[in-house]
Amino acid sequence: MAIDVTPSPVRLKAVAAPGQPDPSPELEQLYRGFERELLVPLWTEIGDLMPLHPQSKAAAHLWRWDRLKELAAQAGRIVPVGRGGERRAIALANPALGGKPYATPTLWAAIQYLMPGENAPEHRHTQHAFRFVVEGEGVWTVVNGDAVRMSRGDFLPQAGWNWHAHHNAASEPMAWIDGLDIPFSYYTESQFFEVGRDRIGAAEMTTPDRSRSERLWGHPGLRPVSRTGALPATPLLAYRWVDTDRALAEQLELDDEGETCTLSPGHAAVRFTNPTNGGDVLPTMRTEMHRLRAGAATLTRRETGSSVYQVFDGTGVVSVGDKQWDVARGDMFVVPSWVPFSAQASPTTQLDLFRFGDAPIFEALHAHRVQIDR
Amino acid sequence: MAIDVTPSPVRLKAVAAPGQPDPSPELEQLYRGFERELLVPLWTEIGDLMPLHPQSKAAAHLWRWDRLKELAAQAGRIVPVGRGGERRAIALANPALGGKPYATPTLWAAIQYLMPGENAPEHRHTQHAFRFVVEGEGVWTVVNGDAVRMSRGDFLPQAGWNWHAHHNAASEPMAWIDGLDIPFSYYTESQFFEVGRDRIGAAEMTTPDRSRSERLWGHPGLRPVSRTGALPATPLLAYRWVDTDRALAEQLELDDEGETCTLSPGHAAVRFTNPTNGGDVLPTMRTEMHRLRAGAATLTRRETGSSVYQVFDGTGVVSVGDKQWDVARGDMFVVPSWVPFSAQASPTTQLDLFRFGDAPIFEALHAHRVQIDR
Amino acid sequence: MAIDVTPSPVRLKAVAAPGQPDPSPELEQLYRGFERELLVPLWTEIGDLMPLHPQSKAAAHLWRWDRLKELAAQAGRIVPVGRGGERRAIALANPALGGKPYATPTLWAAIQYLMPGENAPEHRHTQHAFRFVVEGEGVWTVVNGDAVRMSRGDFLPQAGWNWHAHHNAASEPMAWIDGLDIPFSYYTESQFFEVGRDRIGAAEMTTPDRSRSERLWGHPGLRPVSRTGALPATPLLAYRWVDTDRALAEQLELDDEGETCTLSPGHAAVRFTNPTNGGDVLPTMRTEMHRLRAGAATLTRRETGSSVYQVFDGTGVVSVGDKQWDVARGDMFVVPSWVPFSAQASPTTQLDLFRFGDAPIFEALHAHRVQIDR
Amino acid sequence: MAIDVTPSPVRLKAVAAPGQPDPSPELEQLYRGFERELLVPLWTEIGDLMPLHPQSKAAAHLWRWDRLKELAAQAGRIVPVGRGGERRAIALANPALGGKPYATPTLWAAIQYLMPGENAPEHRHTQHAFRFVVEGEGVWTVVNGDAVRMSRGDFLPQAGWNWHAHHNAASEPMAWIDGLDIPFSYYTESQFFEVGRDRIGAAEMTTPDRSRSERLWGHPGLRPVSRTGALPATPLLAYRWVDTDRALAEQLELDDEGETCTLSPGHAAVRFTNPTNGGDVLPTMRTEMHRLRAGAATLTRRETGSSVYQVFDGTGVVSVGDKQWDVARGDMFVVPSWVPFSAQASPTTQLDLFRFGDAPIFEALHAHRVQIDR
Repeated sequence: MAIDVTPSPVRLKAVAAPGQPDPSPELEQLYRGFERELLVPLWTEIGDLMPLHPQSKAAAHLWRWDRLKELAAQAGRIVPVGRGGERRAIALANPALGGKPYATPTLWAAIQYLMPGENAPEHRHTQHAFRFVVEGEGVWTVVNGDAVRMSRGDFLPQAGWNWHAHHNAASEPMAWIDGLDIPFSYYTESQFFEVGRDRIGAAEMTTPDRSRSERLWGHPGLRPVSRTGALPATPLLAYRWVDTDRALAEQLELDDEGETCTLSPGHAAVRFTNPTNGGDVLPTMRTEMHRLRAGAATLTRRETGSSVYQVFDGTGVVSVGDKQWDVARGDMFVVPSWVPFSAQASPTTQLDLFRFGDAPIFEALHAHRVQIDR
Repeated sequence: MAIDVTPSPVRLKAVAAPGQPDPSPELEQLYRGFERELLVPLWTEIGDLMPLHPQSKAAAHLWRWDRLKELAAQAGRIVPVGRGGERRAIALANPALGGKPYATPTLWAAIQYLMPGENAPEHRHTQHAFRFVVEGEGVWTVVNGDAVRMSRGDFLPQAGWNWHAHHNAASEPMAWIDGLDIPFSYYTESQFFEVGRDRIGAAEMTTPDRSRSERLWGHPGLRPVSRTGALPATPLLAYRWVDTDRALAEQLELDDEGETCTLSPGHAAVRFTNPTNGGDVLPTMRTEMHRLRAGAATLTRRETGSSVYQVFDGTGVVSVGDKQWDVARGDMFVVPSWVPFSAQASPTTQLDLFRFGDAPIFEALHAHRVQIDR
Repeated sequence: MAIDVTPSPVRLKAVAAPGQPDPSPELEQLYRGFERELLVPLWTEIGDLMPLHPQSKAAAHLWRWDRLKELAAQAGRIVPVGRGGERRAIALANPALGGKPYATPTLWAAIQYLMPGENAPEHRHTQHAFRFVVEGEGVWTVVNGDAVRMSRGDFLPQAGWNWHAHHNAASEPMAWIDGLDIPFSYYTESQFFEVGRDRIGAAEMTTPDRSRSERLWGHPGLRPVSRTGALPATPLLAYRWVDTDRALAEQLELDDEGETCTLSPGHAAVRFTNPTNGGDVLPTMRTEMHRLRAGAATLTRRETGSSVYQVFDGTGVVSVGDKQWDVARGDMFVVPSWVPFSAQASPTTQLDLFRFGDAPIFEALHAHRVQIDR
Repeated sequence: MAIDVTPSPVRLKAVAAPGQPDPSPELEQLYRGFERELLVPLWTEIGDLMPLHPQSKAAAHLWRWDRLKELAAQAGRIVPVGRGGERRAIALANPALGGKPYATPTLWAAIQYLMPGENAPEHRHTQHAFRFVVEGEGVWTVVNGDAVRMSRGDFLPQAGWNWHAHHNAASEPMAWIDGLDIPFSYYTESQFFEVGRDRIGAAEMTTPDRSRSERLWGHPGLRPVSRTGALPATPLLAYRWVDTDRALAEQLELDDEGETCTLSPGHAAVRFTNPTNGGDVLPTMRTEMHRLRAGAATLTRRETGSSVYQVFDGTGVVSVGDKQWDVARGDMFVVPSWVPFSAQASPTTQLDLFRFGDAPIFEALHAHRVQIDR
């Protein structure tokens, strides 16, 4: 029943500075008392903790797809996939976040790689996840026994606490990206994990073109009468490129016809949504596909919360704060909180950008702010 | 500043009956006082007003499509369409509702008919509406300037207070059904109406295959990023038969494969929904398409609130309370509140039933009850 | 399996009028066909069914409290209370609604009267109800076994499907008003009813000052941690005059101090709310208490949906459409849909008005419109 | 337009361990490639990042009130309050969180201290805050010009982005606790801050017994009709001890009478709620007062997310994981995520515990799990 007596990690230093009490022996004595009792005054911390606007700890950064894929392929040759490590997934580590596998403070972004015939074992976790396929095909993700095909351009959300495994049914390796809220779950300490079967059954090794979830939920504006009510995450396990591409193309056509429907002239965008409530596919992640007509540019925009982008197709230039990069297929980059972002397609090709971010967290907590320069 | 002295419409009669006060001169005198003061006691009315369960004032009834169409065609020859009458729409009048044009106490159901080249003038009203096309094609509904094609199997919701007109661009007459919440709006006295242009402009006389609304909103699980938030009614103006048919077919396939996704074995059903919130397309009306495999039957079900059905395809037998009818394409019938309903497809053809009802009213007010006999 | 052949209630008459087809033998023949097939064209009905704005079927009307109470007392002497009649409740019958016991198309308003020692038997129904006490005391309403005191100024909501009985524990008769959504439930055909015990038990004959519901839920801004989530109706069974009066008085004080918190200068108003969601106490009825400072007037206001008012205290003048009445304690009057309403307190006394209306129905269905003349 | 070339913070080490690839020169080469490209594999991190259940980084810890107050008083003597430092607030630094001023990963808990006549300058920030007063009186918090008295037992929520200042109008120093979501806002990088006036105006130096917010919003079940709709945070700025105490006392009385209304026998609890929606007072923090009858114990409970408790009155024993402490008035302790908590009042006095936690974050994101041992 004694109070803990571990050596205190608190370290305080009296400094002469505006807004700080003048250094003095009494102040030093007070600070030693604070350290002993595990206390920290606001006045030494307020500048860092309560800035005038968000000052992201994360850096804007770009990862080149060819380098990611090369290292993933190298891992494919020497690192087996199996229970324990669970996945051959290699995460972006933001250079300003101390070497942790966090693309941003809240988001995990990784390239996953599966060799021909390989299986990633079944597990489930409360972290929400998705897959996005920038190239290739041949892998099926099996979710609660439902085998879901993965092909270029497809977006596959994976709500927390569903059993899932992957198997590569093709003769080629395949790479794709995984997005999860692992850093947020880690920070908020709300995560659960369970291992499932080491290998899914033969019946689930089927390679259907359409999953059961798509057959049940993949019809525009229609839902099965047997499934009523709003679900916190989407029951639709695949959003196919053919639909996304058409939606973007038609939005640009309407833009041409004078309909106000794009984010700015030449900048179409669709959001992947949960058909049971019209909101984001996952409670913690917003996912979108953007298309810029050749030569067109986005408005400059910043918002609370962070995003990760992957170039799906085309070439262009993107600006994140004071950084600027020429980008091409597969390249990935990070936009930290409250850092201005803009992009421009090259003069000759349209630019397709896949984006995911943590906006649903801020919207749910009434903390979302957006600023757009028009 | 005097109290109104119109002759009282109240009539009370003392009767000897259980739960009623014994007739007497004093009681008669009291009742005369009630009449004079415009008062009615609960004890004479409670049996009717507060029954043990809903006792619908409406009757179960069937209208044959060939008779509806024949009369509509006759009207097409002699009744012009224009401002004032507004629409050549002919409503089902439930035989138990005193000759009023109400299919049920809350729902309006009509056959509308437009001759080649005809235009129904533009107007808008707060009543919510939809069109459903059991056969034919060639008419476009123009909603806020967006021309929407109407073809067999298509469902076209029309939220209140949007401008709309119809024009028949074909060389044949066309008939379809209109569903509205006119009786409910009339009863609750909340309706507004405005006339628009007598004739829509030439630019709106286009006959596009896909409306602007479909190009913007008709993609499964996707929404334009430029349009956020939940809308009270769907922005998608057409739900095409090709999608509805496929959704039903796939639901039956899944049923065959053992997936629990139908309402009962062999009974698939999809609900038309608002992609911005996943709920019903209109605040006051639920709309669904049901498919029974050849020989299959629904469970017997009753619920608070009423429905109107139209046979879209196939043949079968339907039971509504103690009525039973053989039905075929286009036939329409009414299921009053709390009256048991079941249907069975004929042994050789599947039966497709379009259904609309007032369930959203009851759900919004926490007054929805459903009873299913399993 | 035959179609119903009851004589048709439909009656149609060709008339020469704008917007109507010209009378002719063919038209007469068409109309006979419509009658035979139970059909009614829109063009003969549209003016009535779809007016430019709501045209209430109900009339503005005033009932004087002394006349209500006198007749109720007379009923107290000669009409027993018991099973079957259930309650000695006498309802306002709007003079324009055909003698039906409806104050407005949706609302029931009645005076209920209980003699010393009398008991009104236990029952429950899905209709939502409340009691409001303009004078007197001595009756307890027993809700699911919880005895709730009724005294002048108290408001007692009673959500549907709760068991309830009344007993008069005093030596004097007592009158109060009941408000219910009986007409709406009757119209929408969603009502259920069950009889309970003929007489509540001795343990429930207690006459506590505070009910259990008040002890659990009657604390400002506090709720029991054991009861989480939003309930469709309030669990608090009594809103006491001491609280309502203070809230109104403090609102007028703040108004004096320059805070913008009243509906207009000198017009304070509080709404009775459900502490589990902050909304109306009942899913179908809004209830409020208004106070006008001596000489102050409300703005003129109209809205979709209807209201019933009772003068709680003071005197003044009220205007409903083109009617105007001097009013005093207990007087009740009706404001039909979309009819302008205003009130003014007499120069020397403040005017307290209790109001109930059907606005939650319209808000839930996105059909509420309000117009205020400033 | 070059990719960033800062030295990589990533450090990877091949180790021989279950679930890890066997160390080899190729693996080392791969890891060097990962480091160079700012990549981290899942397989080296999964055990830490994705545990079977939450493993809190925070420690259970207790701070004694007498030590807190003594150090705060010492600070009162030597540290001035003013612009820059903003507040004389001294935060609990969880011993396992590296000396940061975080009571838990998401919550800030501090003792604030104001000398007689002192003023804390006006500012506003998006972080949500509250004050809770364990003893003393004499300080007023001025929120948007509304002076709110602070006295023992009072709870004062302070939604983000409202201007606020404090002034001590008494002749004694006063201490209270502040709770904020500073760590969560810092982590999610969504915080904004603005300075206001250095000194509030004379008109706001009033010391009213009741604030304007209480007069407008502090009535049970009542809200001003002029303020409709749900607000994300409570507009009521003070929840007074007299109400909280009575609610707890009445809950225990009902418990005695056999009503199921406490969390377990002898354990009453009320939650401070937002009267506009019935939910938590602030979007990110849940606040409650618990009372254990003398000798009574809580059930053992754990949940995702963390809490901070302060003993308001009485004595008892609390257990947090494997720690156990005797506690008395003012003592504060931390319950980390998923660590079991229980408390027991001493045999002779009831124990009142004030609690705040981050549960609304988890509920909003559908990530709340609770486990109770019965």
